[in-house]
Amino acid sequence: MSQTKTKKIKVGIIGARSFVGKRFLHLLSDHPRVEVVYLASDTSPGEKIETVRRALKNVSRLEMKRYNHDQIKRDCDVVFMAKEREESFGRVHKLFEAGIPIIDMGADYRLKDPQVYHKFYSVQNPNVDLLKEAVYGLPEIYSEKIKGAKLVANPGCYPTSIILGVAPFFKTNLVNRNEVLIHSLSGVSGAGYSKPESTQFMDVDDNIRPYQIGSHRHTPEIEQELHFLCGEPVKVLFAPHVAPFKDGLHSTIFLKATGELLTESEIHKMYLQFYEHKPFVRIFEPGTLPQIKDVVESNFCDIGFVVDQKTKTYVAISVIDNKIKGAVGQAIQNMNLMFGLDETEGLPYGPALRHARNTNLNS
Amino acid sequence: MSQTKTKKIKVGIIGARSFVGKRFLHLLSDHPRVEVVYLASDTSPGEKIETVRRALKNVSRLEMKRYNHDQIKRDCDVVFMAKEREESFGRVHKLFEAGIPIIDMGADYRLKDPQVYHKFYSVQNPNVDLLKEAVYGLPEIYSEKIKGAKLVANPGCYPTSIILGVAPFFKTNLVNRNEVLIHSLSGVSGAGYSKPESTQFMDVDDNIRPYQIGSHRHTPEIEQELHFLCGEPVKVLFAPHVAPFKDGLHSTIFLKATGELLTESEIHKMYLQFYEHKPFVRIFEPGTLPQIKDVVESNFCDIGFVVDQKTKTYVAISVIDNKIKGAVGQAIQNMNLMFGLDETEGLPYGPALRHARNTNLNS
Amino acid sequence: MSQTKTKKIKVGIIGARSFVGKRFLHLLSDHPRVEVVYLASDTSPGEKIETVRRALKNVSRLEMKRYNHDQIKRDCDVVFMAKEREESFGRVHKLFEAGIPIIDMGADYRLKDPQVYHKFYSVQNPNVDLLKEAVYGLPEIYSEKIKGAKLVANPGCYPTSIILGVAPFFKTNLVNRNEVLIHSLSGVSGAGYSKPESTQFMDVDDNIRPYQIGSHRHTPEIEQELHFLCGEPVKVLFAPHVAPFKDGLHSTIFLKATGELLTESEIHKMYLQFYEHKPFVRIFEPGTLPQIKDVVESNFCDIGFVVDQKTKTYVAISVIDNKIKGAVGQAIQNMNLMFGLDETEGLPYGPALRHARNTNLNS
Amino acid sequence: MSQTKTKKIKVGIIGARSFVGKRFLHLLSDHPRVEVVYLASDTSPGEKIETVRRALKNVSRLEMKRYNHDQIKRDCDVVFMAKEREESFGRVHKLFEAGIPIIDMGADYRLKDPQVYHKFYSVQNPNVDLLKEAVYGLPEIYSEKIKGAKLVANPGCYPTSIILGVAPFFKTNLVNRNEVLIHSLSGVSGAGYSKPESTQFMDVDDNIRPYQIGSHRHTPEIEQELHFLCGEPVKVLFAPHVAPFKDGLHSTIFLKATGELLTESEIHKMYLQFYEHKPFVRIFEPGTLPQIKDVVESNFCDIGFVVDQKTKTYVAISVIDNKIKGAVGQAIQNMNLMFGLDETEGLPYGPALRHARNTNLNS
Repeated sequence: MSQTKTKKIKVGIIGARSFVGKRFLHLLSDHPRVEVVYLASDTSPGEKIETVRRALKNVSRLEMKRYNHDQIKRDCDVVFMAKEREESFGRVHKLFEAGIPIIDMGADYRLKDPQVYHKFYSVQNPNVDLLKEAVYGLPEIYSEKIKGAKLVANPGCYPTSIILGVAPFFKTNLVNRNEVLIHSLSGVSGAGYSKPESTQFMDVDDNIRPYQIGSHRHTPEIEQELHFLCGEPVKVLFAPHVAPFKDGLHSTIFLKATGELLTESEIHKMYLQFYEHKPFVRIFEPGTLPQIKDVVESNFCDIGFVVDQKTKTYVAISVIDNKIKGAVGQAIQNMNLMFGLDETEGLPYGPALRHARNTNLNS
Repeated sequence: MSQTKTKKIKVGIIGARSFVGKRFLHLLSDHPRVEVVYLASDTSPGEKIETVRRALKNVSRLEMKRYNHDQIKRDCDVVFMAKEREESFGRVHKLFEAGIPIIDMGADYRLKDPQVYHKFYSVQNPNVDLLKEAVYGLPEIYSEKIKGAKLVANPGCYPTSIILGVAPFFKTNLVNRNEVLIHSLSGVSGAGYSKPESTQFMDVDDNIRPYQIGSHRHTPEIEQELHFLCGEPVKVLFAPHVAPFKDGLHSTIFLKATGELLTESEIHKMYLQFYEHKPFVRIFEPGTLPQIKDVVESNFCDIGFVVDQKTKTYVAISVIDNKIKGAVGQAIQNMNLMFGLDETEGLPYGPALRHARNTNLNS
Repeated sequence: MSQTKTKKIKVGIIGARSFVGKRFLHLLSDHPRVEVVYLASDTSPGEKIETVRRALKNVSRLEMKRYNHDQIKRDCDVVFMAKEREESFGRVHKLFEAGIPIIDMGADYRLKDPQVYHKFYSVQNPNVDLLKEAVYGLPEIYSEKIKGAKLVANPGCYPTSIILGVAPFFKTNLVNRNEVLIHSLSGVSGAGYSKPESTQFMDVDDNIRPYQIGSHRHTPEIEQELHFLCGEPVKVLFAPHVAPFKDGLHSTIFLKATGELLTESEIHKMYLQFYEHKPFVRIFEPGTLPQIKDVVESNFCDIGFVVDQKTKTYVAISVIDNKIKGAVGQAIQNMNLMFGLDETEGLPYGPALRHARNTNLNS
Repeated sequence: MSQTKTKKIKVGIIGARSFVGKRFLHLLSDHPRVEVVYLASDTSPGEKIETVRRALKNVSRLEMKRYNHDQIKRDCDVVFMAKEREESFGRVHKLFEAGIPIIDMGADYRLKDPQVYHKFYSVQNPNVDLLKEAVYGLPEIYSEKIKGAKLVANPGCYPTSIILGVAPFFKTNLVNRNEVLIHSLSGVSGAGYSKPESTQFMDVDDNIRPYQIGSHRHTPEIEQELHFLCGEPVKVLFAPHVAPFKDGLHSTIFLKATGELLTESEIHKMYLQFYEHKPFVRIFEPGTLPQIKDVVESNFCDIGFVVDQKTKTYVAISVIDNKIKGAVGQAIQNMNLMFGLDETEGLPYGPALRHARNTNLNS
């Protein structure tokens, strides 16, 4: 194979048994520039991942190991950290000091304010020194910073859909920053394997479960990033719901216009300009709205909108695959940028997207 | 059987092949005071309903007939009309004139303003004289009027969940009437059998489909009824979505507080008072939220709420079975009131609810 | 209400928190001749059932109690026992001695041979004396015995669909008794609440899970009852699978013809005769096949068949709602028979079925 | 990109609007050695595929063309034909004569006996001369022939799972060839877009639909290939069912043993030997059974089995993604072989599978 001529990026995955770990192994097995060389698991060291996750039979022959800093330092060019808080703080600090690039899948380095982190996650992050080093890994906003980053805080799934869905508005004075109302629906894979009693088929199927309205942990992450975009504090009311499907995330965001409403045509142009040359964002024409079914199994974020004259409200709809653009795909996109590759490398439809970009994307 | 001693209400169903027709036959077969005596179908006269809808095998032996006014007049005490517009205008007028009580399942008599009806439904209703006779069939609001009605306009499924979900607020000055933002999710049965190409399993499963945001036909119905409750015009932005389940409807309604926010305890009390002695409305305690799975196959509307201090917003969540409380169950509840029966008669859990009401409901 | 004039049957439910308990409370709340007076729970004594199972809010105000033999003896006319093995052996024996009629929802009294029970359930049933008293609660086969029973062993869900699906063949010499091959698909509700890790939405949705092929516990139950029907030992290969829905059970049964094949018309007649006057069994005409969607939420068992000339095989398809005809509905049907009521009393479409029976059922 | 150095295979897709066409565009966009250059559509010539299938936005910029033989001859190295019968007979003959390699997705060239084709498909295939040229495109059986083929008949989805699932048995004398009983469950995508009224969400969800038991068109295809494997006629009773998911196919096959049963360990070894060096077949160890969830979105066929002593029956379970290994993935696998590439090229997990094969596959 031609790709074997080039030196491959050696990847380690910490927390390999998780959903996220499994998806990394699937996606990375098709990445022409990557070799996964190390899997760590605290619960199943010594077991082969293909035994624990049958979908990976023949796809990965790797045995999961007990976490070992020295082995990572010796063997890995980059680490995907799928552990959080106490299971991760010490490890990340030592890896960072050792100069190993880290893409952190948890929330530990997303929030710049340690007080807010403490309030929403009930623990103190001892690595306050790393907060200023960490780059929020949303490539459509921070690609330049990500290219030079040593620690990337991979965004939450809800924030990814929401921030991308409304970012263009927060580069303007078009909307009221004190009343951003968000209704989101997430597939069940967002919950991981950890809470079996709350993700029963009997409770999820044929049902919608609203939860933590106004208090969900992703609220401050959304507020922080919208604040950074517009330069002023933003007040978000975030209403998440669990929906009866495995993968996919749908956000409907209501924004109150401050002055006269722009037309749908003007809004469309604003989105197209903001996301020019962003291969994974697709903007829908006025009169059409995106649907999860068109992004599942891809790294796309599809965005559409409605302008409501009567209530002076803009409605944005933003959909992603919560495990790809909302987690693993975005992390690979970040890795690509960190290692100087094209950001689409190894992700679904990468070659097609590179081709499309050379012509006229989103038009 | 003991119930045969009492004279039964003789029911005719117009549009018997529809989803709604099928559900009527299921529910009414357990109603101790009803006998379905007449089924009309324009498409399948002469066929037995149990042949066309296999679920009804042995449940109903009736043959569908070509619509016949004289036969209805002779045989029926009441008619459920599951036809709309041109297929219904002339029939309803003639039935009304003949003094046959009608429960109309369509939208023809819900909107009091014929201009608004024309705008949203693209036809003129020639029966303008009936608009003032028609009673909007939401028993938790209009039970007294329904008792004396000859023509009941059975509410839409979305409006039922939404109006019940926020009605108590519109009897107060607590909320801004110019920005009522509503996100609803409906099961597929809401679409009926009529548009097979838009309700394909491949398009509905694992998906959310937003549609007609800001322009859906139920918008003026919601605005009219909230206006009647509070005495002033109300502006609604209604964002409906199709969700991947058959039956069920979930509405999340955002209301902007006008002055100081009430506490969750005060809101809870307000709801309990408003729905005192309403057996089919169940109010959830602060900190808990309703879910579709607990109302499916019942005539309940479950309501919960959240008070968000930061954005000065009340969030109400209201869930129903769109085919029961949102259509057929509510129609039977209306029929019960029109015929002087207890409103729970023949509906699921009726005896239990009558018993519960005699003690202390909703506490 | 007219039904209050008649004395009601006072029911106790042991194991009220279970799926089965919840379904009993729903179905029985509409039974005109029943009052549920007692709920026992070993895990949540002192809690109201409507608090633990929100779907029952306002439907049942009862508080669950710690199991108390004397209270049952004093207050209950009949007990539904939704506990098994060690949690039930002693209780059932004492209730039986006290003369309280019992409908047992578990497997303890289904198998007449204690050795077979021990082999498949890994425990010894100490109540060997009760095995000869217990009546297998399949009313379409044993209605006369059930009428006089004091202990009814309510059948398993799989056996209900399978035995009803092929019983007519085992009253004949038409099929080979040594190779009965059965493929069944069950909804997830069959697993109850007890094993959350095996009924995750992520594992059940979009999937089929085969399990315990050739070794499932319902195998001896099916073999015993087919043996009783035909008078000779029967060998069954039973292949159960979990399917991605909540309620419903579909069995496809392959029977090898011994001699010349009967025609579809002859088979149809054989079924109609066997199930004459059985209101809950519906036989499909040749060329049509039953589907779960037409029996869910009902107590029906729908049966169809195919005659395959080439391989000399009869294929029977039998579908039920696994929680109604496969559990709770059948138990109520048994209770009706035990108390001298019509077997359809209080079950969905009961009045319609009584009416249909007086004309010509299944034709 | 390194892969651009090599000349790419130029692909044309006939019937681009279909499910199959959409999946081809998704999968081939990641194939390093392929460029899709031509899309034909009889219904939507002139439209861009990304407009008709929104999931392809930015993935393919191609415009669908009216079918044009000369353009194909000029531009395409190979054609995927997703049209059947009258829409395809003349086109395929002309392409074949022009020397354009064809992978035919329909049934026209699968059955070697034109009488059988006529009987099951109700038309005569005029291209009888092509039947002897066509190679049945099941690479695990016919890889050598496929390498030299000019016309490949891509197998049906059901036959793929079933033939692979039991092929090793038909290379032996272990089983009775006159009673092969098969129960299959297919996802809805198998039905394509063509019959919207039979693939409604309301009818598919929470349901199992048995159909064409003993008469389905895939029966002779299965019988033909098992016949070729064992050298003698085979009698199959095939019982297909539609299951409530989009993609995936599960077959449970019952085989009657002729003599003494082999042990599970012997059967396991037989399967491993038969599928040695077949990267897309994964054999499950005794005591474990495959599930659709582990093959969806892959080109794998997972196979497990049970040996039932009592009834002298072998049960094989075989699962695939009906649109990948059952259609599009298998077609690409065939194309790879025809063009001298590794059969895994461009298919999910290809690099990982090539790596695994070099070590010890299936062990």
